Amino acid sequence: MKEYQFELEMKVRDYECDLQCIVNNANYQHYMEHARHEFLEKAGANFGQLHQQGIDAVVAKVEIEYKTSLISGDRFVVKLNIAREGVKLVFFEDIYRLPDLKLCARGKVESVCLDRGRLTRGELFDEIFSKWLKK
Amino acid sequence: MKEYQFELEMKVRDYECDLQCIVNNANYQHYMEHARHEFLEKAGANFGQLHQQGIDAVVAKVEIEYKTSLISGDRFVVKLNIAREGVKLVFFEDIYRLPDLKLCARGKVESVCLDRGRLTRGELFDEIFSKWLKK
Amino acid sequence: MKEYQFELEMKVRDYECDLQCIVNNANYQHYMEHARHEFLEKAGANFGQLHQQGIDAVVAKVEIEYKTSLISGDRFVVKLNIAREGVKLVFFEDIYRLPDLKLCARGKVESVCLDRGRLTRGELFDEIFSKWLKK
Amino acid sequence: MKEYQFELEMKVRDYECDLQCIVNNANYQHYMEHARHEFLEKAGANFGQLHQQGIDAVVAKVEIEYKTSLISGDRFVVKLNIAREGVKLVFFEDIYRLPDLKLCARGKVESVCLDRGRLTRGELFDEIFSKWLKK
Repeated sequence: MKEYQFELEMKVRDYECDLQCIVNNANYQHYMEHARHEFLEKAGANFGQLHQQGIDAVVAKVEIEYKTSLISGDRFVVKLNIAREGVKLVFFEDIYRLPDLKLCARGKVESVCLDRGRLTRGELFDEIFSKWLKK
Repeated sequence: MKEYQFELEMKVRDYECDLQCIVNNANYQHYMEHARHEFLEKAGANFGQLHQQGIDAVVAKVEIEYKTSLISGDRFVVKLNIAREGVKLVFFEDIYRLPDLKLCARGKVESVCLDRGRLTRGELFDEIFSKWLKK
Repeated sequence: MKEYQFELEMKVRDYECDLQCIVNNANYQHYMEHARHEFLEKAGANFGQLHQQGIDAVVAKVEIEYKTSLISGDRFVVKLNIAREGVKLVFFEDIYRLPDLKLCARGKVESVCLDRGRLTRGELFDEIFSKWLKK
Repeated sequence: MKEYQFELEMKVRDYECDLQCIVNNANYQHYMEHARHEFLEKAGANFGQLHQQGIDAVVAKVEIEYKTSLISGDRFVVKLNIAREGVKLVFFEDIYRLPDLKLCARGKVESVCLDRGRLTRGELFDEIFSKWLKK
C-alpha cells in the first residue's frame, strides 16, 4: 500500500446502489468530493464558508477507473494525495474496500480556484494545504 | 381523474432506482420538488433567482403515500394543486404512471416563505400564484 | 431527550446541500433510510441480502416535519424507535444536530414486508426486531 | 457543431445544484448515464431488463472535462457518439447548454459487458448498436 496524505472511512448506503445492486458510478465521485472537503476541513477551511467569501474550488476535470464494485453493506476508505500542477490542485483519490483493501476505484480530480467567479493562480491552495504540498 | 392546476411529464432515470429495482422513495420527493419549481417558472418566477433575492420557499412538512412502484423505463406525470392554509402554501401532488394512469404516489407538501431567513405571512405566494389560488 | 432504541451519527456531505445552502429535503429521507438499514444490520439482517432472498421491506408512507435546516459542516444523529401497527412496522425517526441536539427533522416511516412481491403480515419484522418490539 | 448519433434534451432540476448554485459535478455523470440508457432504448433494449437477463453493461472508466457550469433554469442537450475499442464500447458524450449551445462538459465513458458477472468480448454491443457502429 502506497502512502497517502489523508483518508476517510465510509460505508455504502443502500440508496447509493442502483438496480445492478452495486454502487452507482456517479456516487464514487460523491465519495471523492466528500473526502476532499473533509481534508479541507482538516486543513482548517470549510467549503461552504469559502463559497460565502466568494472563493470557489471547482472541478475542471475528473478521471475515474472502476476496478471492483462496492455493494450493500460494504465499508470502504477513500485515500488521497495532492499535488500542484500549474494553477490546478490535483487530487489523486483511491477507494479501497474494507477490510480486505481491494482497490475499487482510482480517481484523479483536477480543481481550480475561483475568486468571485474569476480564475486565480491557486495561491489560496498553497496557503491552505501548505503542510501537504511538496516544496 | 380529478382536475389539477399543473402537470409535468417525466421519465424514470435508471440511477434513481435502487437495489430493489424500483425508484428509491426519496426520489419521489425530488420529482415533486421539480414539479413545484417548474410550476413556479410557469407562474413567472425562478427558485434560484428568488434565493439570490433573499426569498426562500422552504418545505415545512411532507407526507407521501406510496401506492405503486415506478421501475426502469416507466414514464410518469406529476399533477398538482395548490392551496393557502394560513402562512403556508400547500401543494397536493400526485404521481401517475403513464400511459395507464395508475396512481404511484400521493403527496402533500407544506411550504413557507422566508425573507432573508425570517418567516413571512406568505404574501409573495399570493402574488406569484394569484391565477391559481382561489379567492 | 426521550429514549431511543437506536441511533446513528452522520455528517452532512456538501453535495447533499442545494442552492439554498441547506441540506435538500429529500436527503433527510435518505438519512432516515440509512439509519433504518443500519438498525437492521444491528438486528442481524442486511437489506440487500433480504432482497436477494425475495424479501423486501418497502415504505408505504412517510411523514417528515422539517424544523431546523442542516448546513455544510454539520454533524447530526438520527435516533429511532419502532412499533408494530397491524401489518406495518413503523419507524419514528428524529434527526438532531450535534453537538447542540437541536431538533432538525421529525419523521414517521411506515413500512410493509413483501415476500416475492406479495404483502405479508410482517411476521419477519417480529422475528428480526424481537428484542426491540414491545410484547 | 460536429455530428452525433444520438441526443437527449433535459433541464436542470434544482436539487441537482449544490451550495455553489451550480449543478454538482457528479450529476453530469448521471446525465450522461441517462442519455446512454435512452440511446439503448432507442436501439431496442432496456438496461433494467438486460440486468434481469444476467447481462450488465458496466462502466470501466470515465473522463469528464468541465467547461461551463449549468445553473438553475438551464436547459441542455447531451449528444453522443459510440465506438468499439476492443472489448469496450466507448461513449463520447458532450453536454451543451440550450439555446446557445455553449459546451458545458465533454465526457468519455468506457463500458464493458458482463454476462452473469463474467467479462464478455462485447458481441452483444455489436448486435444492439449495429446500426451505429462503423464496420
